[in-house]
Amino acid sequence: MAVPTNVSQSPEITNETLRQLGAQLRIDSIRCTTAAGSGHPTSSMSAADLMAVLMSRYLKYDWQNPHQPNNDRLIFSKGHACPLLYSMYKAAGVITDSQLLQLRKMGSPLQGHPNPHVLQWVDVATGSLGQGLPIGVGMALNGKYIDQLPYRVWVLLGDSEMAEGSVWEAFDKASHYKLNRLIAIVDMNRLGQRGETDLGWNSAAYAARARAFGWHAIELNGHDLTEIDQAYAQALRQTEKPTCLVARTEKGHGVSFLANKEGWHGKALNADEQTKALAELGAPISVTVAVAKPDESTPAKLWAKQTVKAPAYALGTKEATRKAYGDALVALGGEHTDMVVLDAEVSNSTHADEFKKAYPNRFFEMFISEQQLLGATVGFGVLGKKAFASTFAAFLTRAFDQIRMAAISNATIRLAGSHAGVSIGADGPSQMALEDLAMMRAVFESTVLYPSDPNQTVQLVNQMAGQKGISYLRTTREKLPVLYAASEKFTIGGSKVLRQSNQDRLTVVAAGITVHEAIKACDELAKTGIKVRLIDLYSVKPVDKAALRQAAAETGGRIITVEDHWPEGGIGDAVLEAFATDKSALPHVVKLAVCGMPGSGTPAELMAAAGIDSTAIIKAVKQGEII
Amino acid sequence: MAVPTNVSQSPEITNETLRQLGAQLRIDSIRCTTAAGSGHPTSSMSAADLMAVLMSRYLKYDWQNPHQPNNDRLIFSKGHACPLLYSMYKAAGVITDSQLLQLRKMGSPLQGHPNPHVLQWVDVATGSLGQGLPIGVGMALNGKYIDQLPYRVWVLLGDSEMAEGSVWEAFDKASHYKLNRLIAIVDMNRLGQRGETDLGWNSAAYAARARAFGWHAIELNGHDLTEIDQAYAQALRQTEKPTCLVARTEKGHGVSFLANKEGWHGKALNADEQTKALAELGAPISVTVAVAKPDESTPAKLWAKQTVKAPAYALGTKEATRKAYGDALVALGGEHTDMVVLDAEVSNSTHADEFKKAYPNRFFEMFISEQQLLGATVGFGVLGKKAFASTFAAFLTRAFDQIRMAAISNATIRLAGSHAGVSIGADGPSQMALEDLAMMRAVFESTVLYPSDPNQTVQLVNQMAGQKGISYLRTTREKLPVLYAASEKFTIGGSKVLRQSNQDRLTVVAAGITVHEAIKACDELAKTGIKVRLIDLYSVKPVDKAALRQAAAETGGRIITVEDHWPEGGIGDAVLEAFATDKSALPHVVKLAVCGMPGSGTPAELMAAAGIDSTAIIKAVKQGEII
Repeated sequence: MAVPTNVSQSPEITNETLRQLGAQLRIDSIRCTTAAGSGHPTSSMSAADLMAVLMSRYLKYDWQNPHQPNNDRLIFSKGHACPLLYSMYKAAGVITDSQLLQLRKMGSPLQGHPNPHVLQWVDVATGSLGQGLPIGVGMALNGKYIDQLPYRVWVLLGDSEMAEGSVWEAFDKASHYKLNRLIAIVDMNRLGQRGETDLGWNSAAYAARARAFGWHAIELNGHDLTEIDQAYAQALRQTEKPTCLVARTEKGHGVSFLANKEGWHGKALNADEQTKALAELGAPISVTVAVAKPDESTPAKLWAKQTVKAPAYALGTKEATRKAYGDALVALGGEHTDMVVLDAEVSNSTHADEFKKAYPNRFFEMFISEQQLLGATVGFGVLGKKAFASTFAAFLTRAFDQIRMAAISNATIRLAGSHAGVSIGADGPSQMALEDLAMMRAVFESTVLYPSDPNQTVQLVNQMAGQKGISYLRTTREKLPVLYAASEKFTIGGSKVLRQSNQDRLTVVAAGITVHEAIKACDELAKTGIKVRLIDLYSVKPVDKAALRQAAAETGGRIITVEDHWPEGGIGDAVLEAFATDKSALPHVVKLAVCGMPGSGTPAELMAAAGIDSTAIIKAVKQGEII
Repeated sequence: MAVPTNVSQSPEITNETLRQLGAQLRIDSIRCTTAAGSGHPTSSMSAADLMAVLMSRYLKYDWQNPHQPNNDRLIFSKGHACPLLYSMYKAAGVITDSQLLQLRKMGSPLQGHPNPHVLQWVDVATGSLGQGLPIGVGMALNGKYIDQLPYRVWVLLGDSEMAEGSVWEAFDKASHYKLNRLIAIVDMNRLGQRGETDLGWNSAAYAARARAFGWHAIELNGHDLTEIDQAYAQALRQTEKPTCLVARTEKGHGVSFLANKEGWHGKALNADEQTKALAELGAPISVTVAVAKPDESTPAKLWAKQTVKAPAYALGTKEATRKAYGDALVALGGEHTDMVVLDAEVSNSTHADEFKKAYPNRFFEMFISEQQLLGATVGFGVLGKKAFASTFAAFLTRAFDQIRMAAISNATIRLAGSHAGVSIGADGPSQMALEDLAMMRAVFESTVLYPSDPNQTVQLVNQMAGQKGISYLRTTREKLPVLYAASEKFTIGGSKVLRQSNQDRLTVVAAGITVHEAIKACDELAKTGIKVRLIDLYSVKPVDKAALRQAAAETGGRIITVEDHWPEGGIGDAVLEAFATDKSALPHVVKLAVCGMPGSGTPAELMAAAGIDSTAIIKAVKQGEII
């Protein structure tokens, strides 16, 4: 057995120590997964030497101060290799061996995939492959352009996950933005979950792709410590291009019956196998590494504040809520110098370009890459920036997995989706968001807002700036009448009653563009003596339960919801949910929503065909079963 | 004005005719968008010469028989250029000029983006960029490996959309599968929606990327008819590699005040501008093209049937519904020789590998590329194949935009998502699908099924084989007790009552794994004299309204729903929706769903922590407000 070696805080770490560290990381990857009875030891073992050199000689990280702005960032995009990550924590001395062996147990912070909810040294949750590098792009953008600090962003990827298109969105934007402090380390171990990867050990093919996307690429033997060291050193010398290390490795390296063998993905070793493996690896080994802290702490760049008058829209005028979003960003951006805005090639439509015009150095164009848009937004968000991202609401569905993972990452980000509903008109259904409320309501602890008026929009955007978690604003293409004075107050979780009397026969609940249709309907009905309450449910999640229940109680328990959205998952369901557990009698709820696949047409034609315009509302009110 | 030239059905089409055709396509792109008052004329004009040569000399298509298996396939991935596509239809003589001028009008089949719901020559809806090429991959896979017919798949892409990662998933898989009959035509007009693209006119960069991904690439002047013709001819000679044409073009080419000018994206010309433009283009021009029909009609390959015994699982045994999915595929695949199965690197987990083992030539591994998985599935589906695609349910969120567009495409596809819910255990939240029911319910005319038992699974999969539109099956990782005899019948839209008496105090509605928890709860409660009805709601959409209403009526209007899913958008909402417009009183519905972000643990621990296990159900039943 090798003699245990403790290494004190010396920068001169020998290859022999690195060899032992690599072996220890393998040993510990096996031990914790065997203790758990599950996990991915072989996927961890392939990258052990790469990580041994990284943490010993290159990574700059202050474990006591994980949010220190000068820290390097390390993302395990191949999140299933977290046994290796956790073994690194032990080697760094920040967790104990017995904590390591709690891997995957209920309540342990060492979960099956890295989770920032419970581990302070993990910036983002990974486990859905291909997402680490786009987030790394965001972190590197922050470093180079916002904080202007020299930290590096290291992203460990598996070779299988290089098939994910999101990775190539990141390759594209990283070179476009000259992110020379971003380093992608590809653990090319040849074996995916169910067999060989597409490219196997063809490192030249990976390198050619990286170079074609504008990166500096280095092919290396991922188990040769000298080659690894030289590759990292070369990466550090880059001044223009990000670097991609294509490291040829063996899955299960270091153990004869595992190394490069099929059938071992996601399998923990049993007790006998563990014994044999540990013997081959030279256990026990006890190496501790003093990871270097960042150099003298440079402060992050301070951006100058500017006083920008809050936008206000006059009653009697018309404006689109998407425009108010853009105007609100400008006002916010003057006050919040830690704010950045991102968009995906549609900023003249989403009006994020207003912020771009005002603060060009804090705006980031992501081009047509919604997955990268979300990744960068999360990267900024977890580093403490107030990040707002926008595109057409329909195209946010392109990044639903990224949004899902952002919630697991406990990230705080703000999303705005424009061009909601059939009311966008002639462009047709491919551009119409009809499922975005459903999608965003199903995101853990999300906030979902859908304003009907520009003054309301501005206030809600301001509140999003202070809201934790994932918040979403749905905006409308059309210019619509201003409904509220700029002095009116709106809150997340609130609602507004726009029409009421003590003779209201039922309540109409609407949001966004259907509020305007409902106003027309209510006023039309009032002329014929039918009084109807109208609630503007601009906060779709959380929903104003108290107001809804009060309205139901006061208007005979009859509710009509109307939304420019499919019937499932949106306003109607939000309203139903508000009553589901109420002890008192529950209302009748009629859901008006888009029925039938829309085509092209004018907004008015399309809303009529969809059954959500004022005519449809009037008809629903007059239907026999309601009155 | 140029003299109108009619071209008869001659294969010898001169460059002069092509020049006129190109001009006519530009003229008509302007005319129809000006008539509509909206649309994308300049994006159409850049590709006019490329399409003129294609339709006149290379495309093989029988307009009278759009589903003829030997037809070439043409996809406008840059769907906003559909004025060009529709102008091609007119030049081909299949629509009239006055039909062309109905572009974007309510009820016109010529919508703002191409839509197969209303146009027989359009195979798939486009308009969400980056989706055309992955679908083309599916069509080309069908051609090369399933039908074994020599048709070609032509995909027109914009340069802006080359930033979408989904495009690179397609590049990757197309070369992997040696799809030499797939041709991507990149209309490199330099200008995106709000300014210059990332790479501008750097055709060498695009070509380098295509080559690095294993394609044959040709750079050309997209307005030089001879170069275009030679490029297509070269593409046709490929025997191993797909071909990418990188065509340097001008947005708005042919009109002095439009050509290569910023600010014209998505803008129709006004009347004066139209007059000037048409004059410059030499209007009027009247060219008709006889598009060649496919060569002598080769029949598609006939695959041999096999009789495979339907799988059946014995009461008293345990099996996972994900395994039953795999077994069901094998039985179906023997009968349905037009069936293909696709998966994304997890077929040993989803059990799609059962089909792979039985019919290796009809199984397609898409590796870790969920967007490409969906694209290929749609490509097969619109060409009449019964395509089943699977991955982890959580990773289907990676392809929500593709699923959304598949509905607009009127595509019939079958999706299976495994590893649903917290009950997957130690892998943790990144692998758990907790929003997939919400997502799939919000898809237009979808079918959403969630079996609790393997025999039930087999029947539902069989019914999916005959179901139109997008159907989704949610499967469970755990092996669970067989609940139903193999002879029991299940139908889409149905449900099963598993426990009932005439003293039921309330109804528990569950599906999938929570059915098993509910059974434990019901039986436990029955011992203490509390009788509770239990409904297995295996059809989440459409939901069995009649059974739910009957149960509510018979059990005091009290319902508890319980699901391994977030509270929003799933079974609880489906049940609430079933009552929403009922004249009788809405029931009390208590929704038990996953509360709190799960971590790692055993399935039992995690379901307990989530509040959805038998203990939680019993507690909810006993809560004061219910009884």
